Amino acid sequence: MPAPTDHAVVDLLGLVALGELLAFERLAADARLAPDLHRRAALGEMAAAEIANYRRLADRLAVLGVLPDDAMAPYVAPLQAYHDSTEPRDWAEAVTKAYVGDAITDDFLREIAGALTGPDRQLILDVLHESRYADFAAAEIRLAVAADPKVAGRLSMWARRLVGEALSQAGRVAAADRGALTALIARDERMDPQMLFRRLTAAHTTRMAAAGLNN
Amino acid sequence: MPAPTDHAVVDLLGLVALGELLAFERLAADARLAPDLHRRAALGEMAAAEIANYRRLADRLAVLGVLPDDAMAPYVAPLQAYHDSTEPRDWAEAVTKAYVGDAITDDFLREIAGALTGPDRQLILDVLHESRYADFAAAEIRLAVAADPKVAGRLSMWARRLVGEALSQAGRVAAADRGALTALIARDERMDPQMLFRRLTAAHTTRMAAAGLNN
Repeated sequence: MPAPTDHAVVDLLGLVALGELLAFERLAADARLAPDLHRRAALGEMAAAEIANYRRLADRLAVLGVLPDDAMAPYVAPLQAYHDSTEPRDWAEAVTKAYVGDAITDDFLREIAGALTGPDRQLILDVLHESRYADFAAAEIRLAVAADPKVAGRLSMWARRLVGEALSQAGRVAAADRGALTALIARDERMDPQMLFRRLTAAHTTRMAAAGLNN
Repeated sequence: MPAPTDHAVVDLLGLVALGELLAFERLAADARLAPDLHRRAALGEMAAAEIANYRRLADRLAVLGVLPDDAMAPYVAPLQAYHDSTEPRDWAEAVTKAYVGDAITDDFLREIAGALTGPDRQLILDVLHESRYADFAAAEIRLAVAADPKVAGRLSMWARRLVGEALSQAGRVAAADRGALTALIARDERMDPQMLFRRLTAAHTTRMAAAGLNN
């Protein structure tokens, strides 16, 4: 496979950097829904991990001679729209959003890392979420369901809505992209969009079951 | 000077831990007022430093056999009230709040560290803010004033309001405290409340001038 164009790498790093920055802000804001101070702090610490990742991505963009703001600009509208359309109403919805969103992001990044080389590939693999955050979120979801079994249905529906909104905004990301990023994905034959979509949703279904929700 | 009671140390660590947790949340929320993405990220990184400090304080409380939530509980109302009554309306007010709030907190912690011993004293000194954050905030204030000299008056008034609200809530903190913390402060003769107040406001005045504001 030929090395991806710098343009595609810049687009991808910009997209991921903005994703981290907005995930930081939303997790920090959602932390106020926590039922107690230590859970509030736990979501805050998940948020802090995202801004640390943002810094690494922004620094890499600077090394490539690109202003991070310029690389992120095309994606502000769709990523902001995703978060605006999925504001959690309570703690259970907040941890479900963190659980679902982090995991799908990680799956996507793992897939896309295969199309990169060298330090950019390693950087993308490095910014994957630590499993302890997913463990925390899944445990909170199971607790909420155990306290009130009716919650399972509501959170399952919420998770489906999150995935639906994410896919809808992913379409807008592809449209906002200057072409290099989608070309990068298309170049790798493993990256057939249909197959990619199927793999991402299959992994999502498995995770829903692990947290006691149904797809 | 005799070693302070564990009770006073627990109260102090609980107060500082909650201060860090709420500062994290407010800085993260205020970041959305930033005029561009890199400034937004810069305030987010200041926030992340606060939650890292929170973790150290919470871990120390756990070592002392205290649930962090219990140690923080008495201070939730006054600290939350401070932030609720000082919501910045724009970026210049947000960085001024970070600049003023961090510095007064640090001055207070430096004073109080003198009344502590051993690892608790070191911990309090460790959670002081890095000067690069103050440098960033002061530079942003000077930029805002340079762009529109009228802003200096508004921000000076805003800074006075911040100090006023902080002092008012400090009174409520002292009232919420179970007595051990104020006893700890009173025990150290350098800690005469009048003198402490005078030192804190003198340092504040110097800082205002450094950022191009008047007291």
